Amino acid sequence: MVPHLVTALNGPLLELEKKILEATPAIERWFRLEWQEHTPPFYCSVDLRNSGFKLAPVDTNLYPGGFNNLAPEMLPLAVQAAMAAVEKYCPDAKNLLLIPERHTRNTFYLQNVARLMQIFRQTGLNVRLGSLSEDIKEPTNLELPDGSILTMEPLERSANGRRLGLAGFDPCTILLNNDLSAGIPSILENLNEQTLLPPLHAGWAVRRKTNHFAAYDEVVKKFAKIVDVDPWMLNPYFAKASQINFHERIGEDLLAAQVDAVLTKIRKKYKEYGIKEKPFVIVKADAGTYGMGIMTVRDASDVKDLNRKQRNKMAVVKEGLEVSDVIIQEGVHTFEQINEAVAEPVVYMMDRYVVGGFYRVHSDRGVDENLNAPGAHFVPLAFAQQHALPDVHAKPGTASPNRFYMYGVVARLALLAASLELEKTDPNPEVY
Amino acid sequence: MVPHLVTALNGPLLELEKKILEATPAIERWFRLEWQEHTPPFYCSVDLRNSGFKLAPVDTNLYPGGFNNLAPEMLPLAVQAAMAAVEKYCPDAKNLLLIPERHTRNTFYLQNVARLMQIFRQTGLNVRLGSLSEDIKEPTNLELPDGSILTMEPLERSANGRRLGLAGFDPCTILLNNDLSAGIPSILENLNEQTLLPPLHAGWAVRRKTNHFAAYDEVVKKFAKIVDVDPWMLNPYFAKASQINFHERIGEDLLAAQVDAVLTKIRKKYKEYGIKEKPFVIVKADAGTYGMGIMTVRDASDVKDLNRKQRNKMAVVKEGLEVSDVIIQEGVHTFEQINEAVAEPVVYMMDRYVVGGFYRVHSDRGVDENLNAPGAHFVPLAFAQQHALPDVHAKPGTASPNRFYMYGVVARLALLAASLELEKTDPNPEVY
Repeated sequence: MVPHLVTALNGPLLELEKKILEATPAIERWFRLEWQEHTPPFYCSVDLRNSGFKLAPVDTNLYPGGFNNLAPEMLPLAVQAAMAAVEKYCPDAKNLLLIPERHTRNTFYLQNVARLMQIFRQTGLNVRLGSLSEDIKEPTNLELPDGSILTMEPLERSANGRRLGLAGFDPCTILLNNDLSAGIPSILENLNEQTLLPPLHAGWAVRRKTNHFAAYDEVVKKFAKIVDVDPWMLNPYFAKASQINFHERIGEDLLAAQVDAVLTKIRKKYKEYGIKEKPFVIVKADAGTYGMGIMTVRDASDVKDLNRKQRNKMAVVKEGLEVSDVIIQEGVHTFEQINEAVAEPVVYMMDRYVVGGFYRVHSDRGVDENLNAPGAHFVPLAFAQQHALPDVHAKPGTASPNRFYMYGVVARLALLAASLELEKTDPNPEVY
Repeated sequence: MVPHLVTALNGPLLELEKKILEATPAIERWFRLEWQEHTPPFYCSVDLRNSGFKLAPVDTNLYPGGFNNLAPEMLPLAVQAAMAAVEKYCPDAKNLLLIPERHTRNTFYLQNVARLMQIFRQTGLNVRLGSLSEDIKEPTNLELPDGSILTMEPLERSANGRRLGLAGFDPCTILLNNDLSAGIPSILENLNEQTLLPPLHAGWAVRRKTNHFAAYDEVVKKFAKIVDVDPWMLNPYFAKASQINFHERIGEDLLAAQVDAVLTKIRKKYKEYGIKEKPFVIVKADAGTYGMGIMTVRDASDVKDLNRKQRNKMAVVKEGLEVSDVIIQEGVHTFEQINEAVAEPVVYMMDRYVVGGFYRVHSDRGVDENLNAPGAHFVPLAFAQQHALPDVHAKPGTASPNRFYMYGVVARLALLAASLELEKTDPNPEVY
C-alpha cells in the first residue's frame, strides 16, 4: 500500500521519484564512491517528512531504537549489513557488548534490544548486555512479552583499567544503543584497546544538530547536481541561536530574528513554486532527542510571548539536559496519510545499507507537528513491499517499492551527512 | 512449508540442524575469518541433496543461471551482496559487460539474464550484453515473455587490442554467465586491463570437479570439528578415473575398480549408522555441466556392460566436449518431497552471502537419480520463509527458516571450497 498523498501537491515529488529512478546507476555509483572516502555510522535511523513538494530528513538518529518495528522479512538484510559492518571494525570479533538505554523497564524498547541481539548473534557474535544504570548491581533478568528473558549485567573495567566488559565476558567491540544525553559516563572513557561504536562524540553530550545539517547541506548540493533538482526539494533551511536561556528570557530577540530569517527564506521559495501552504519552522534543542524541547512556530513574534509552561518545556530535554542552543529548522508538512492519520516515514540503515523502515502514524497530530513527542502514541507500519526492487516502468507514485527506494536514497544522504559530521567533529582525528 | 522428509530417516539431520543452530555465532565467525583469507567466487549456486541421514553438496556452479527462479523478495539481499562484491573488485566501476550463454533463444535463460541486469543496475552499474555467438554480428533484440527487450551486442576488442567491450561501451568489469564448456574463446584472453569475473580457469575448459571436492574435503574437515559431527554427514566420498575412452572401451576396469572402492566405503558407513538404503554412486564427467555424461551406478559390474547408447551418452557433454576423466561420487538419496515429487534444494550466493534458493522438483525421477538432466522438466519452488531469521527455540525440523539456514551453511562450505579450488588451480597466482 502506498499511503495516500494529497493529490494537488504531489507533482514535484512524482517528478523527483522519476528522476531518482532513472538516475539509479549514477546515484548508486556515487554513493559507492563516497563510501570509499567516508566511513558510514555503524547504524542510523532517519525521520523523513514528505510534503508532496518536498522530501527531507528532519532528524538523524545515531543510536536507533525501534528495530523491533521493522518487518521480520527485512532482518536477513540487516544481518548481511551488520556482517559488513562488523568485518570492517573488528574482523575477528567474537564477543559484542551491547549497552542499551538506562530506562530498562520499557518493554517496547527491550524488544528493540532483543531484536538487535538476534541480528548480531546471526553475524557470528556472542552478545551480552551491559547496563549504565547504577541500579544494576548484579545480573538482572527482564522478561519480554513473548516470555523470553534479557539479562542486564553490571559493567566492569578490567583489572588493569584498560578494558570494559562484564564478569567473565571480554568483548572486542562495544556497541552503544544509548545516546549519552546524560553526558559521557567515565566508565566509557579511555577505552583504547576496544572498538566503541558509535564513537563518544556521536552522543548528544557532544553532538549538535546544526553540525549535522551543515554537513547535509554539502551532501545535498552534490547530489542535487546528479539528479538535476533544486537542492531545496530535499533540504530544509535552518539557522542556529546560541546562549538562549528560556527560564530567564535571555536571547529571545536573537531567536526571533533567526526565526524570521528562516521564514523569509521559506516564503520566497513557496512563492517561486506557487505553494499556498503557510510556512512554519520547528525550534528544537541543538543537542538531544526524544521530542522534548520542540515547538512549532509560524511567526517570529510567537517566540517572544512564551508563557512559563512553554518556556519550561523548551528549557530542558531528556535526562534533564539544559537547553541553551537551538536549531531553527524549516518545517516540512507531512502530507502522507494512512487511514486519515498523519504518517511520517522512518528509514533504518546499518553500515551503508538500507535495512527497512516504517511509518510513524499519529491520528491526533496535525501536518505541521512533530510526531515523535514524548508519550505520543504512534503505530509503526512497516513499509509495504519494501523487499522488492524498484520498477522503473511503473507510473510515478503508484509503486510502493519505488517510493521506498526514494526514501532510502534521501535517508542515505542524511547517513552520509552524519559520516561527514562525525569526521569534522572528531576530537581525536588521528585515531579515528 | 517445509517439504516432507521421510520420517524414519530424519533423526541424524534433525540433530545436525540443532547443532548448527546452536553453534551459529561460532559458525558465522569462522566463515568471517575464512573470508579474510580467501576470496569468495563472485557468484555461485550449489545443488544439495538431503537424504535425511546426510546433507551434501553434489554440484557447485560458478556461472549460475536461474536467478529468475529466486523469490523476488530476496532480490534486495542480492543487490546488497552484489554491492559488496563490486566494491571489492572495482570500487569505481561504472559499466558492466555481461556475457551470457550462447544459446540465446531460451526464454527461461534470458529471464535469468534480465534478472541479473536488474540486480547490477541497482548496484550502480550500467549493464550491457555482449555475445560470444558468431551469429550476433550487430545489436540484436530478443523479446522476453513480459514484453521487455534484451539487446545482445557483438563483442569487440579495443583498437590497441588490450580491452574488451561493445561499440561505444568500455566496461571496467566483465562478468561471465557462460561456463566456457566450449573452451576459452581467444577474444577473452589477455584482458589485463579489465577485471574478468569469474577468472578463466573457473570455466569448464579448465575446471575439474575432483579438484573442487578435494578442496571441499579440507573445508568440511575443519567445519565438522566446530559443530562436532562426522564429516561424512556433509561430504560425499569420491574418486577419480582418468583417460577413459567410452567409445573405445578403454579404462573400463579402472573405472569399475574405483566404483567398487567408493561403494565399499559407503557400505561401511551405512553399516556404522544402520542405514538400510542401497548404496549407489554417480559417475559423471570431471569437467562440464548440464546433466550430460552422468549415470547412476549401483554395482561395479554395471560400468563394464555399457551398451553403445550408454557409452555415447557418457562420451560427450555440453558443446561436444569429449569426456576422458570422470568423477565417481557417492550418491546421496534425496528424500525431500513436495506433493510426492522428488525435490532437491539449490542455494544461490553472491560474494560470501546467501541470497536465496529454490527446490528443483521433479515428479518423474527417483530418489537416486540426477534431477538436472537435459530437457528435464523441473518446477522451481522458492524456499518458503527464506527471508526470516532462524528460530533457535523451534523444534528441529519444523521451521522453514531453520532448514534454510542449515542449507545456507552447507552451501557456503561448498562456496569456500570453490574459493580454495580456484586459488590452487590458478595458472597465474601472482596476478590473482
